[in-house]
Amino acid sequence: MSQVVTSFSAERGLSERHIHILDAAERVFARAGFHAATMNDIAAEAGMSPGNLYRYFSSKDAIIGGISERDRTEVSADFAQLDPGKGGLLDQLEELGRQHMVRKPREKAIIALQIWAEASRTPEMAQICAGFDETVEHGLGAAVAAAVASGELPSNLDQARFLMALFMMADGFFCRRAVDPNFDAAVGAEALFAAMRGLAQTMLLPPAGEPTS
Amino acid sequence: MSQVVTSFSAERGLSERHIHILDAAERVFARAGFHAATMNDIAAEAGMSPGNLYRYFSSKDAIIGGISERDRTEVSADFAQLDPGKGGLLDQLEELGRQHMVRKPREKAIIALQIWAEASRTPEMAQICAGFDETVEHGLGAAVAAAVASGELPSNLDQARFLMALFMMADGFFCRRAVDPNFDAAVGAEALFAAMRGLAQTMLLPPAGEPTS
Repeated sequence: MSQVVTSFSAERGLSERHIHILDAAERVFARAGFHAATMNDIAAEAGMSPGNLYRYFSSKDAIIGGISERDRTEVSADFAQLDPGKGGLLDQLEELGRQHMVRKPREKAIIALQIWAEASRTPEMAQICAGFDETVEHGLGAAVAAAVASGELPSNLDQARFLMALFMMADGFFCRRAVDPNFDAAVGAEALFAAMRGLAQTMLLPPAGEPTS
Repeated sequence: MSQVVTSFSAERGLSERHIHILDAAERVFARAGFHAATMNDIAAEAGMSPGNLYRYFSSKDAIIGGISERDRTEVSADFAQLDPGKGGLLDQLEELGRQHMVRKPREKAIIALQIWAEASRTPEMAQICAGFDETVEHGLGAAVAAAVASGELPSNLDQARFLMALFMMADGFFCRRAVDPNFDAAVGAEALFAAMRGLAQTMLLPPAGEPTS
């Protein structure tokens, strides 16, 4: 894991061969599941010898770390592009949501669920998920704070609860997309966006001095 | 719980021994994960021989089916107890939510995630999850329709989107509880309930004759 992160961070981008392996591993994980997949399967999918594969990634965990780190970098860059000067931030967040939730193939949701299931029992994988969540929470939190500052969202928005509701809906979206082959990603995403806009108007802090319960 | 189990046993023919095995299997799955767990592990946890275990359940899949069916019966009975005559249905839904999301141990969320991960790749397990979801959707849908009929919820509530947002939040709640050991279930549940009440006032159908986009 540390080796993966180091080589990755050093270039801020993986080598072509690293990218090729991560793509192959994603296909194998989506097909066989993280547990049943072997390093040999991944080597075969990548069209290389197992010995050669191990020169790039020392284990399945290291490959998962690489997949997660790659997604994290992408999501982080996407959030960094949000700009109140370009128009409504909620509109921009919706477009970002469509990009990651609807346009990506269902396999990405299946892989996410495999990783979460593993993370629910192993601290190392939970650490990787926590790192990814931190990136999303930071990016989304900053966007919401900017929208409050610009007046696009109410000044008394309960930002913590609003963000928690959005995170739960986003995670639940990926669950439903992974588990239910008939789930309509576009319909689900539009329901989520409508909920986001409704919550932005109703998840408000109580007026100062009023009891909270 | 004991009452539910009793009625469940009576109706569905789950013997004390079946219940004992399902409880043991839940502990093993939460600890070892569904994939790594073996029938031998479950037999040992249940204090019986593997040969004897196979007389009750033919496979791990059959045990998962039993766990899901038991949960489904319990949830179905809980929804059936909702009654507008007892007070606000949203209040009653919140109490049901606390019972299943906060008071149950985190292990239940971990098991749910293991099952979802398996269901994302195998049609048989996806079928089991679909059956469970159907029970929840039926129960929650009926409660929401009753609340609309009684005037507790707006008559123009977009029930389909409202329910989808609630399902996504509930699934996401279980994800976060399973993956993040520091997730505060009580805080998460209260955010979900606040979101439910906010959405009930804002997820409305457009006035008749108005374009929907």
